[in-house]
Amino acid sequence: MTEDTYGNLISSLAMDNDKRIVLLVMDGVGDCDNGGKGTALQQAKTPNMDTLAKNSALGLHVPVAAAVTPGSGPGHLGLFGYDPLIYQVGRGVLSALGVEFAITDRDVAARLNFCTIDAAGKVTDRRAGRIGDDVNKACLAKVREKLQLPAGVEVFFETESEHRAVMVLRGDGLDDNIGDTDPQHTGVEPLRADRPPHNESRTALMVADIFDQIRAILSDEPKANMVLGRGFAKVPSWPTFAQRWKLNPAAVAGYPMYRGVARLVGMDVVSQPTSAADICAEAVKAMADHTFVFAHFKYTDKTGEDGDLPAKIARIEEMDAALPTLLNGKPDVLIITGDHSTPPSLKAHSWHPVPLLMAAPHLRGGDGPTFDEVACRAGQIGTIPAREIIPLALAHAEKLEKFGA
Amino acid sequence: MTEDTYGNLISSLAMDNDKRIVLLVMDGVGDCDNGGKGTALQQAKTPNMDTLAKNSALGLHVPVAAAVTPGSGPGHLGLFGYDPLIYQVGRGVLSALGVEFAITDRDVAARLNFCTIDAAGKVTDRRAGRIGDDVNKACLAKVREKLQLPAGVEVFFETESEHRAVMVLRGDGLDDNIGDTDPQHTGVEPLRADRPPHNESRTALMVADIFDQIRAILSDEPKANMVLGRGFAKVPSWPTFAQRWKLNPAAVAGYPMYRGVARLVGMDVVSQPTSAADICAEAVKAMADHTFVFAHFKYTDKTGEDGDLPAKIARIEEMDAALPTLLNGKPDVLIITGDHSTPPSLKAHSWHPVPLLMAAPHLRGGDGPTFDEVACRAGQIGTIPAREIIPLALAHAEKLEKFGA
Repeated sequence: MTEDTYGNLISSLAMDNDKRIVLLVMDGVGDCDNGGKGTALQQAKTPNMDTLAKNSALGLHVPVAAAVTPGSGPGHLGLFGYDPLIYQVGRGVLSALGVEFAITDRDVAARLNFCTIDAAGKVTDRRAGRIGDDVNKACLAKVREKLQLPAGVEVFFETESEHRAVMVLRGDGLDDNIGDTDPQHTGVEPLRADRPPHNESRTALMVADIFDQIRAILSDEPKANMVLGRGFAKVPSWPTFAQRWKLNPAAVAGYPMYRGVARLVGMDVVSQPTSAADICAEAVKAMADHTFVFAHFKYTDKTGEDGDLPAKIARIEEMDAALPTLLNGKPDVLIITGDHSTPPSLKAHSWHPVPLLMAAPHLRGGDGPTFDEVACRAGQIGTIPAREIIPLALAHAEKLEKFGA
Repeated sequence: MTEDTYGNLISSLAMDNDKRIVLLVMDGVGDCDNGGKGTALQQAKTPNMDTLAKNSALGLHVPVAAAVTPGSGPGHLGLFGYDPLIYQVGRGVLSALGVEFAITDRDVAARLNFCTIDAAGKVTDRRAGRIGDDVNKACLAKVREKLQLPAGVEVFFETESEHRAVMVLRGDGLDDNIGDTDPQHTGVEPLRADRPPHNESRTALMVADIFDQIRAILSDEPKANMVLGRGFAKVPSWPTFAQRWKLNPAAVAGYPMYRGVARLVGMDVVSQPTSAADICAEAVKAMADHTFVFAHFKYTDKTGEDGDLPAKIARIEEMDAALPTLLNGKPDVLIITGDHSTPPSLKAHSWHPVPLLMAAPHLRGGDGPTFDEVACRAGQIGTIPAREIIPLALAHAEKLEKFGA
């Protein structure tokens, strides 16, 4: 792991006080110009955000690195002040977080895909004909019932969706030196988890045996007669958000993945609202006994992924209408941003820098006139890496000591 | 070699698709304001570039690092996504590329300068009175004819211009632990290539012997009676452009140095046009079977080095007039920029950030209103290191996978 020089510096300066910081994430809020019609933020009627922008610092943030499109995990880690290139999480752990599996430091997690193999053992469909969740659940139930495990080891299987599932091994001394078994194309056998250089790993041998058993257990299934595993990973042992920033953090998030990433850095998940009104109300409640609140709004991303620009605009307006509730809670520092952009024109996450608003007491004027990608480009914060957002908020909340005498 | 963390990250995310990226380099296009009259780009009439700028993202790029003036090699490596501070090429190899010598991985190349020594062997003129190319060629012919070499080793000499030449040794197991022999001032003897710590190198001993022979062979020359060697270097073993970016690259370049740098990263040199019209036409042809085309226009640099502002303006206008041909080829992503600035007022390459235009489908509006240094400063790309240009183009061409789940 690369040394986190900047993060460690800020951490060494952090100190506790009573001021409240709220990070409101409108997931995937950034956009492109939709063929000249303007971004979703530009088109949305957001009188409350615009008024706030006139009294706030604006900027753009780069979630991971120039040109890089982040997944939800890295996108949020950056917002939490964990450089996503330094604090990398294995695919298996992200999958476990996504189904809200309560992962522990004795666990090794992997993403599983059901697949179809032929009589010779060769993969004919890497997604098992995209079976439905019902088949997925039925197959996992069969595996749970029949699988034999060594003493002292537990295994958990969770359905994600369609052909996707999560496997978690739990026991003492497990490691994640385990080979991906997905051969990445059809016509060949699955790879073995314990092939060299993984054959030195006791856990890899165990996984190889589990996969042999699963093949036997599922042999009478018409489609989902085998699984492929990848991204075997242990939960990382990072300093918690509380340790790092001397904050007492709460998470208010309606979707499992975001609660999972919040728990990964030790946040206290206090509430699971999904509507903008509930999120703002719950965030204010959480401020009562937490110095930091992460509040997550999913629908700006979901509508972007659906390619539904009018719905994305409507969701932004929904949050704008709810914003006075949050403002009434009088956070000392309020950050409004996204974890990445999700342009409806791309129907996917994108690499574009993300609009960022920071309402705080000691600014160089308010930037305004609106909160959108173009106003943010000209703002006093400039274009910064996501990992600098928490440090800036700490500074504005007077939670950072001076460096040097 | 420093680890290329950013480049390796982007390389790990790169994937192939059918979209076409064109990089049009107007060599040395950046300028200063010519005593208040405006830069060459500002003064040139460029209706086609201006229309394109209104629908494109603009920015500036820093070729190597703040305040650093790049040579042509580093300038282009940055544009190709190879951080010039990490991917350093020896002087000898750049000289060999400059005369389009087909250098191989069995070669060691050096830059030679003819010089004059006195009877005591001391250097009296490090440039041999700036002899003409004819004397240079005649002397090299003499050396080629009389030089005795060990079995299994070949040597090549090529005239560059005036007192400048290139020497390439070819053989198995050659190394480049060879001392520069140029003492950097007159009144002293040339240094020995095999002085400590180079005396462990078999190749250095060989070079020292070759230089002793050359001194004898040229002893009756009035001016060019010795050579000085520097920048002994092997061709670097870097990942090719194709490997690194999953692109199938073609180069369209009329001058040897640029074909050389393109070949250094494994590009397919398909054509050697020099006029703007031919460059644009050939670039479009190359797009038929290449996903990436590097097209190089030399004269914006040459006129800058000549200090000829009107000629530089005329050359920019020549490219502007040819641009519709290139646009008709419908590249998915078109980059127009330079490898550095060459202000006529400096008659040399300079350190000034370089105007950058990227025409691509998923922008935040078009920046415009023109393509010049001032409009570019306000553009949505901002001021970025050159090494981020290819990654951004890959992102816009949807050739980068998401980072993390």
